[in-house]
Amino acid sequence: MNLKRYLPVLQWAPQYGRDQATSDLVAAVIVTVMLIPQSLAYALLAGLPAQVGLYASILPLVIYAVFGTSRTLSVGPVAVASLMTAAALSPLAEAGTPEYVAGAVLLAVMSGLMLTLMGVLRLGFLANFLSHPVISGFITASGIVIAASQLKHIFGIQASGHNLLEIGQSLLLSIGDTNLATLAVGMGALVFLLLARKHLKPLLLASGLAPKMADILTRTAPILAVVVTTLVAWQLQLDAQGVRLVGDVPRGLPEFTVPSLDVGLWQQLAVSALLISVVGFVESVSVGQTLAAKRRQRIDPDQELIGLGGANLGAGFSGGMPVTGGFSRSVVNFDAGAETPAAGAYAAVGIALATLFLTPAIAYLPQATLAATIIVAVITLIDLPALGRTWRYSRTDFGAMLATIVLTLAHSVEVGIITGVALSIGLFLYRTSRPHSAVVGRVPGTEHFRNVLRHDVELCPKVTFLRVDESLYFANARFLEETVMDLMIREPELTDLVLVCPAVNLVDASALESLEAINERMKDAGVRLHLAEVKGPVMDKLRGTDLLSHLGGDVFLSTFEAWRSLTDLGKLEKQVA
Amino acid sequence: MNLKRYLPVLQWAPQYGRDQATSDLVAAVIVTVMLIPQSLAYALLAGLPAQVGLYASILPLVIYAVFGTSRTLSVGPVAVASLMTAAALSPLAEAGTPEYVAGAVLLAVMSGLMLTLMGVLRLGFLANFLSHPVISGFITASGIVIAASQLKHIFGIQASGHNLLEIGQSLLLSIGDTNLATLAVGMGALVFLLLARKHLKPLLLASGLAPKMADILTRTAPILAVVVTTLVAWQLQLDAQGVRLVGDVPRGLPEFTVPSLDVGLWQQLAVSALLISVVGFVESVSVGQTLAAKRRQRIDPDQELIGLGGANLGAGFSGGMPVTGGFSRSVVNFDAGAETPAAGAYAAVGIALATLFLTPAIAYLPQATLAATIIVAVITLIDLPALGRTWRYSRTDFGAMLATIVLTLAHSVEVGIITGVALSIGLFLYRTSRPHSAVVGRVPGTEHFRNVLRHDVELCPKVTFLRVDESLYFANARFLEETVMDLMIREPELTDLVLVCPAVNLVDASALESLEAINERMKDAGVRLHLAEVKGPVMDKLRGTDLLSHLGGDVFLSTFEAWRSLTDLGKLEKQVA
Repeated sequence: MNLKRYLPVLQWAPQYGRDQATSDLVAAVIVTVMLIPQSLAYALLAGLPAQVGLYASILPLVIYAVFGTSRTLSVGPVAVASLMTAAALSPLAEAGTPEYVAGAVLLAVMSGLMLTLMGVLRLGFLANFLSHPVISGFITASGIVIAASQLKHIFGIQASGHNLLEIGQSLLLSIGDTNLATLAVGMGALVFLLLARKHLKPLLLASGLAPKMADILTRTAPILAVVVTTLVAWQLQLDAQGVRLVGDVPRGLPEFTVPSLDVGLWQQLAVSALLISVVGFVESVSVGQTLAAKRRQRIDPDQELIGLGGANLGAGFSGGMPVTGGFSRSVVNFDAGAETPAAGAYAAVGIALATLFLTPAIAYLPQATLAATIIVAVITLIDLPALGRTWRYSRTDFGAMLATIVLTLAHSVEVGIITGVALSIGLFLYRTSRPHSAVVGRVPGTEHFRNVLRHDVELCPKVTFLRVDESLYFANARFLEETVMDLMIREPELTDLVLVCPAVNLVDASALESLEAINERMKDAGVRLHLAEVKGPVMDKLRGTDLLSHLGGDVFLSTFEAWRSLTDLGKLEKQVA
Repeated sequence: MNLKRYLPVLQWAPQYGRDQATSDLVAAVIVTVMLIPQSLAYALLAGLPAQVGLYASILPLVIYAVFGTSRTLSVGPVAVASLMTAAALSPLAEAGTPEYVAGAVLLAVMSGLMLTLMGVLRLGFLANFLSHPVISGFITASGIVIAASQLKHIFGIQASGHNLLEIGQSLLLSIGDTNLATLAVGMGALVFLLLARKHLKPLLLASGLAPKMADILTRTAPILAVVVTTLVAWQLQLDAQGVRLVGDVPRGLPEFTVPSLDVGLWQQLAVSALLISVVGFVESVSVGQTLAAKRRQRIDPDQELIGLGGANLGAGFSGGMPVTGGFSRSVVNFDAGAETPAAGAYAAVGIALATLFLTPAIAYLPQATLAATIIVAVITLIDLPALGRTWRYSRTDFGAMLATIVLTLAHSVEVGIITGVALSIGLFLYRTSRPHSAVVGRVPGTEHFRNVLRHDVELCPKVTFLRVDESLYFANARFLEETVMDLMIREPELTDLVLVCPAVNLVDASALESLEAINERMKDAGVRLHLAEVKGPVMDKLRGTDLLSHLGGDVFLSTFEAWRSLTDLGKLEKQVA
């Protein structure tokens, strides 16, 4: 039972049959065709040699197939993690140098360790700290930065920088050096890919293809661009024209790689590795959950941490870069009919074959083509309408989202996401620190109590009923003290205050102390504090505390009961009844 | 009206009469007698020359009298802020050097600016981030560290360190160098003060003094210790015996001091200044509120920020150290009958007179006496039983408290409190990230719905009612998705899911997106999502969102209404009725 939890492969492998194998194989072929250009492109984006991307697409897929719980997630290099890798490594070494590659390997290993540890300790909830607006803003901004960073390859110029300002400035300074042959290849690929995305599917549909098949074929347009531009570059010897090509890629399978054990380097990369891990995990889980739900399957987030952790360890120890579940590839894998994680393992075989036999051809692939595939891929990540939707729904969420976007664009990915997380936590605490509360009165002739400001209700000058619509905890404990004190000062005749708590799901130690302080201060001032409608679990905790033993007043099950015991009108009615 | 808000002095000064003046003067004399040794002692604790403590007890008190809202808060140097000052400055300069003093001045100015800014921007809620267990643990641990740090003065030895481990080690290494004359003075003062605290009050009561008067006289025991040991040191020329005395203190009032404008120094001290500000503010407000409530007065926390900010600016610009409202002095001030903040201003005059006329005598005051007064004062801060109380009430709050204490003792005050704050926020988010939720069923023959696990209720296999007992926000959005997906997979017959939301006080943008995702996934799986008992303010926000326009099911005012519309049994009953 437990073994099956930690080795999800045991859940599906024993019943694995020929039909499933056929479906998985078909999906694997299509995913492989997509994954080859993506692996190369994301290695380029991360500032790494092309083979690092390929290596990250072999062993990690096999490991995820054993430990992962999503049936259709396609693991491998992805755009945002590659950008974050580049941002983490660029302060340490020159892109492409052995130290830089060693840094990428270490990032993958550290990310693998962190994810696995979080999975074993069941710390998946930590990913909750990334709110939707922050993650959505972060991905939009990352997409913009990535697209901008690839323009240099399209124009064939030198440019650098890790935020939009730096990249933009750098591009403007060197735009005069544009290499026209590169621009022709890059723009050609870009226009072809954009047109393919827009018009290929309708065309294929019109030619009688099934919608799913048309969709999948459309997604393989990048490989066509790669093949055509590689042939052109080879035939016309474009490198002599100054078109930068991928160049020699070592042939053969990845070798076992020992990560650096330099403590200083581990410390320098720790925050980056954590951010890459958490962002990757959140994206994977959200894709995985969406796809699983379509077939009424489920994924286990804590086990997903172990699956992705294992995949990253595999990536690192085989000389690869950080990996996670990619959105578009997973959707293709699902649509192509993948039924089990074995499809991923088959795709790994496909990539392994590519490293064995295709590397001589890859040498002629223009970098501009890869840049074009990256740009087209990340355009789908950019969701600017989300800004408007979030603005309309919640100003505070919008604030966190905007700050994330602006800081990611103008400063760096790490500052952007950390500020976003801090802001969303801060704003949540702020929002709950001034909870809605209302003095309530009795709706005449009923047992219902409503806000005095909104309804025509009966009141008693000496007895006030205060309803608090929020859990009581440290962030609003002081607010409660102030609200009650204000009430006490405003109503000099007050003798009884009833705190009505139907929406209080939690009273933490801070709020308990505040309630005790309120109770003592009210006693000093000659006012009794009562509680009403306290929820069962909250009451269980309060029993045995000083608050209840020193409470100036009583605890009532219902507000109406308190009304009948405390107010003159209520007592009269009770006598009559 | 607004002027009165920002200048609370205008609220009481116009009606200030002779009776009030008399009460305030009496209180001021007693507070002055307490404040003289405290100012000197806390300057010693902070590693500063004695006069810095006196300077911090003149202008700040006058400024607070104008801008503060508490009638009885006694502002000036306090133990915890002095320890934090020492911890902030020791990495920068040798204690007692001009650079060190300049650092203390800058800390006061920065703290003043931060507090004033927070007050003007009404950011008092930021203090809410300090939960009670964290602040209580922090003060307990600080008290222990402070007491330990003063032992070197009692023994007349050299020792250093900013946490218990360092101080303990340092003391053990040099305990052999104990100066017996110093030990005699220090132990004598310590024993006298401890006995006075325990027995002086009963003695005075027995001699027929009124309880309040006895209490106040007991609190002035430190000045007696100061006078006696100063006389002894002078008569016996104890400095020749190796007893360290306070030494020459410049005579006269403080002069205008220009704080350092070194940007690097500002950056280095920023976090420390913020922590000193927030901790001081929290302590002041809690004392101020407790005392104000006893007389049914109120304080305005945002204006308190301005009052304390002004006081710290005053301290800095007059060569003083960071100040805040002290607990014991404020209680004495209150008990001695202070009626307005003018009492504080009168005490300032008292301290000013001391700087003019008492400094020659202060030169003979042994440091061991001051150390004894500090130790006796901070013992009252140490509240170890709070650990037990918190453990019994809440394990998570206990965890945050323990971490704060351990890290403050074993590492440093700053790491201790920052970790405590991070942990209490993290634990709160963790606690709300797995909210209580229950599948509910109908109590037969009623309109009530209860947890199926606890009650014998009617169910319908095709329609599930899920009640969530927490606001829905980013920290639990994913939990909600998982809970609903699990339900859907567990109940393959399910056609309708009703989310019952009476305790949902908030749905943030993350939770909204999760609900939309849940709705879409359920539609894909052929299940309708309904909502019931959504609160008014939450419903107001949801209107106009995609969730409601795409909702697979309906929105019901009550769970019972949903039951009658959706379940077979309910429909039948409705027909019959």
